Amino acid sequence: MGEGGDGGGVEEATVFEVGIAVPRLPRAAAGGRGEGEDCVARLVRELEDAGLVVERVRGVPAEFIKLSAPMGTLGRAAAEMQMKKLTYIGMELQFEWDQVAAFVRQPDGSLFSWRERFACFRHLIYGIMNKTNSIIILKFDDKEFHWSQNESLLSRLEDEGVVKLVFPLHDEIKRKQLLRNWALNWHDFTLQPIDEIYSYFGTKIAIYFSFLGMYTRWLFFPAVFGLATQLIDFGPLQWLVLPAFFIFVISWAVFFLQFWKRKNSAILARWGINYSFSECKTLGNELDSLSRTDDDVQEKKFGHAPDDKRILQRKEWFGVLLKIRNNAIIVLAIICLQLPFELAYAHLYEFTETEALRYLLTAAYLVAIQYYTRIGGKVSVILIKYENNQGEQSSADSLVYKVFGLYFVQSYIGLFYHASLYRDILTLRQVLIQRLIVSQVLENLIENSIPYLKYSYKKYRAVHKKKHEKESPAGKSVRLSTRVEKEYLKPSYTASIGEELDDGLFDDFLELTLQFGMIMMFACAFPLIFCFAAVNNVTEIRADALKLLVMLKRPAPRVAATIGAWLNIFQFLVVMAICTNCLLLICLYDEEGKWRIEPGLAAILIMEHALLLIKFGFSHFVPEEPAWVKANRVRYVAQAQNVCSKQLLRSISKLDTKWA
Amino acid sequence: MGEGGDGGGVEEATVFEVGIAVPRLPRAAAGGRGEGEDCVARLVRELEDAGLVVERVRGVPAEFIKLSAPMGTLGRAAAEMQMKKLTYIGMELQFEWDQVAAFVRQPDGSLFSWRERFACFRHLIYGIMNKTNSIIILKFDDKEFHWSQNESLLSRLEDEGVVKLVFPLHDEIKRKQLLRNWALNWHDFTLQPIDEIYSYFGTKIAIYFSFLGMYTRWLFFPAVFGLATQLIDFGPLQWLVLPAFFIFVISWAVFFLQFWKRKNSAILARWGINYSFSECKTLGNELDSLSRTDDDVQEKKFGHAPDDKRILQRKEWFGVLLKIRNNAIIVLAIICLQLPFELAYAHLYEFTETEALRYLLTAAYLVAIQYYTRIGGKVSVILIKYENNQGEQSSADSLVYKVFGLYFVQSYIGLFYHASLYRDILTLRQVLIQRLIVSQVLENLIENSIPYLKYSYKKYRAVHKKKHEKESPAGKSVRLSTRVEKEYLKPSYTASIGEELDDGLFDDFLELTLQFGMIMMFACAFPLIFCFAAVNNVTEIRADALKLLVMLKRPAPRVAATIGAWLNIFQFLVVMAICTNCLLLICLYDEEGKWRIEPGLAAILIMEHALLLIKFGFSHFVPEEPAWVKANRVRYVAQAQNVCSKQLLRSISKLDTKWA
Repeated sequence: MGEGGDGGGVEEATVFEVGIAVPRLPRAAAGGRGEGEDCVARLVRELEDAGLVVERVRGVPAEFIKLSAPMGTLGRAAAEMQMKKLTYIGMELQFEWDQVAAFVRQPDGSLFSWRERFACFRHLIYGIMNKTNSIIILKFDDKEFHWSQNESLLSRLEDEGVVKLVFPLHDEIKRKQLLRNWALNWHDFTLQPIDEIYSYFGTKIAIYFSFLGMYTRWLFFPAVFGLATQLIDFGPLQWLVLPAFFIFVISWAVFFLQFWKRKNSAILARWGINYSFSECKTLGNELDSLSRTDDDVQEKKFGHAPDDKRILQRKEWFGVLLKIRNNAIIVLAIICLQLPFELAYAHLYEFTETEALRYLLTAAYLVAIQYYTRIGGKVSVILIKYENNQGEQSSADSLVYKVFGLYFVQSYIGLFYHASLYRDILTLRQVLIQRLIVSQVLENLIENSIPYLKYSYKKYRAVHKKKHEKESPAGKSVRLSTRVEKEYLKPSYTASIGEELDDGLFDDFLELTLQFGMIMMFACAFPLIFCFAAVNNVTEIRADALKLLVMLKRPAPRVAATIGAWLNIFQFLVVMAICTNCLLLICLYDEEGKWRIEPGLAAILIMEHALLLIKFGFSHFVPEEPAWVKANRVRYVAQAQNVCSKQLLRSISKLDTKWA
Repeated sequence: MGEGGDGGGVEEATVFEVGIAVPRLPRAAAGGRGEGEDCVARLVRELEDAGLVVERVRGVPAEFIKLSAPMGTLGRAAAEMQMKKLTYIGMELQFEWDQVAAFVRQPDGSLFSWRERFACFRHLIYGIMNKTNSIIILKFDDKEFHWSQNESLLSRLEDEGVVKLVFPLHDEIKRKQLLRNWALNWHDFTLQPIDEIYSYFGTKIAIYFSFLGMYTRWLFFPAVFGLATQLIDFGPLQWLVLPAFFIFVISWAVFFLQFWKRKNSAILARWGINYSFSECKTLGNELDSLSRTDDDVQEKKFGHAPDDKRILQRKEWFGVLLKIRNNAIIVLAIICLQLPFELAYAHLYEFTETEALRYLLTAAYLVAIQYYTRIGGKVSVILIKYENNQGEQSSADSLVYKVFGLYFVQSYIGLFYHASLYRDILTLRQVLIQRLIVSQVLENLIENSIPYLKYSYKKYRAVHKKKHEKESPAGKSVRLSTRVEKEYLKPSYTASIGEELDDGLFDDFLELTLQFGMIMMFACAFPLIFCFAAVNNVTEIRADALKLLVMLKRPAPRVAATIGAWLNIFQFLVVMAICTNCLLLICLYDEEGKWRIEPGLAAILIMEHALLLIKFGFSHFVPEEPAWVKANRVRYVAQAQNVCSKQLLRSISKLDTKWA
């Protein structure tokens, strides 16, 4: 097993990480007659042959095959997959089991991250082929089917409906530990065990929680200032309070976002994900465009030949045009369909006399927008499929922008209406509180209760069915006894739109972003809103953690080194906030509605431009990557380059003569 | 010499690329008495021993040693210097002469670029040490001095005043070719042989001319539009012309700058400078911060130890604070000293009655600002020395920002004054024309005539001195006969401020930037100005080319993959242009000076914000690096990684055990 085999996976070989659900057959049927082997038995045998540790569990709704992989099996799979793994010289190289010492280890000391392990599992499971020269006949519950040569057994079984689901399993020990240290840890409001979250859920979810934690921690500053503006009377300087608060909040946001970028690179450095901030954006695209090129040019060598350059260029511009067209469609749809609708609602709400009618109106509106956004999401997903985005991350980003456009108009147009046209600050505040508290708190409740209700319903149905099947002999109560069947029944962590493009983080991030937009854009109208947001986020961390640990299946790990498109949206919201707050200030100080440019108004305009300048100039002063991360990153690379230099050169020279 | 020796350097071994100027001694004194060798003779012998081809030329002002290096000598020097050179797998590795095939070649097929050759020359020349165990006594014109052990001969001679100058020589063949194809090529206005410029002058100058060419080419579009606005009467739609022109110009600038970035990466890809756009920014810093770390930590291994992290962090923040302090000093100086001065001038100019007084005032003003900017530049250079900038490029950028701040206020405050406070469009136009034509045309003339005058004066003095020495025997006229002595007398290409930080490109870029600012920020006041700028730039290309080829010494090559800080300044000017043009439009349409927000004014404000949004959102649509560059970049890397993978891994594993 080599010196590298002493990682985490060996001692805890009994930690089952992946489950396969197959239908539960009556015991009698298992030993059937006729030729052909039972397919589930065959699957188990093949899995064991692949080096996996297999355990069969008979549950109430189905039968489960639990899988665990020893270190050696995982390593073999990684080498077979030609998995690229970061080495100490900062290059990603193909994994080789006998050169294990060259690869960067995880912060907890193990060789493979959860994402890599899961990829290996999938490779092992779906890589079970019929390697004999003949078709193998398998049977399942008296049905017979053929497993032809070089066909994946698992895909065949999925097609036949035998394998219902392949899903990652919770690791009970780590889950309990996280539950104790994280979800139910009320001592420190914002401290989270990010490293443990990373090794349990993977990068994407850990980055989300890290961002949420930092955001919440930073929120306390404006929350305190906001509270102060409400509690303290500043006397003759009262008129200065709101502009000061405005400037503070914008600077706060600019600092926060820049420092988040630094924190992000620091975290990645700690986890041994060795991208610089900018490289990680391009790297994905590069590799994708390369593989695309390979597909298109089909093994044909392309050098600086103008032909290939032209093809690539044409393709690039075609992609840009498609993107522009799709965005134009979305923008037009928003302006022509959604905007009038939202304005009509805001207008009607303002002019409705009785409270009862207002509630009715709001109810109707809420139902309508449910449908509206669902349709919008579907349309966005369809549009994205026609874009030639480079890589999954790029598609997901594109979707994020489009869907956020919908939600942006939906969430804020009504508020803008109250803020600017009517200059009705009191109504605005009322609507703000209503939106923030009702929508956020309710959403949190719904978000957590719906999975539970789904789970309960599924459980009930499964148990009920079982009872019917057994016709309740001796009235014995049927209960779900094993952990794996409970997990199987739990809902999975998926986005409300476009399941295949993004996971449940989409909804969580959307919620966070809409909240950020609301508190930033209307900061001057209601400084106290930051307090509500801070309190809300403290509970949000716990609610999301509980959801992931208790309510849902363990999500399949996804690659993402940053929060991606959401960061850009946050930046955009800060710019919007500068403009809207200026508008609010003008409304507040220009009470007679004369719209005259007086010194005050001119001052506000100048302030706006100055803030915009600061927003865009700030990143020049504070680099996105801390110096120590850079130093760490370069250190190994430089040393290794010096040592390996000669050897490398020799192989490159050989390569070159081969290519020439 | 290996397979790689068949580059350009061998056949043209007689191309002398570096000259050393030593005093011209009377022939009689050369064979002096006493012990000790003549130092110049010794220098020549040592240079020959180092493998260089040496030619001595006796000129009028001095004696010259012309040097040329065969390929083998250069290669040996590069290996000695441990020069890092790009290999085909995209990593920079130490140069090794026997693995020459691994390194990327120049576009013209030679192994070393001009910058690398020059670095090798310097290494060879300054690397001549006294390797004997005793002090060698050298004499020069009866003076004796000691050349101690392990001391560089050339540094010693420089200290003694024997070696006056080491300077790169023009390559007559290539120079004539460039003169014909480039400086005196009037057929195509903007086409330049960029690749030839690159291999003759190095990256930095080639990038400048490439930018200037593209800028000029793009300028024709707004020039035509600007001309059209003046010539064509649009009838009832006349009021729409200026806003349309404004929007066109801003979009033009945004497109131009984004496409320049693409062009820049395309050029770098062609030259085999294999940075991606973002990497090249960080790479320099990385290596610098690494070497800095090495210096500080002094061979001490630093891992993730919190100590080292803290040191680096403290240093980083200290640097940021210093930068902020320095910038604050500059900003305060500009606001408190320069602004009142400029405003006073503008005000006086407006209120002076007679033309004569105005000219007098302007003359006084021009003299004053000459001193003012010189002092400002000096102060900036001093301030920068106290910043701990990472690398020369970073210092140069910092200087650019500071000095541009000075020039920005100096050039535009008067214009702003006319534009906004007096709303005197006619005066503004007049000042604009005056500034653009007078300043730009005059500057071009001065820029080109001053070097020529300097050269003529030096030539005259040298010849005059010679005549005196010889006391004109037989009235024979003394003339400069050799090329090398002419070049020696030519001025060098240096910046007007801070010679050590930047070369003459600083002034050229500054001129270009100020022009861009002027035409962009006051586009609406005078659309015709784009025509003047376009014509001016066409001559500027030729003037700059002539200056470099004919008027000046060949400049020492500098590293720079992009136009650096200037691009940021261009971006900043576009943003400024959005704001100032809006202000101008408001002034133009609000003739009664009521400053009322009417639909028109609100529309302009909305337009401003929309344009700002476009400016900052545009880069999301058009990537900074063309797809084919990316594909090319990744292609070799991926293939090479796959081939070298195993070998690399083995060496990394070994490395790892060594470190552990």
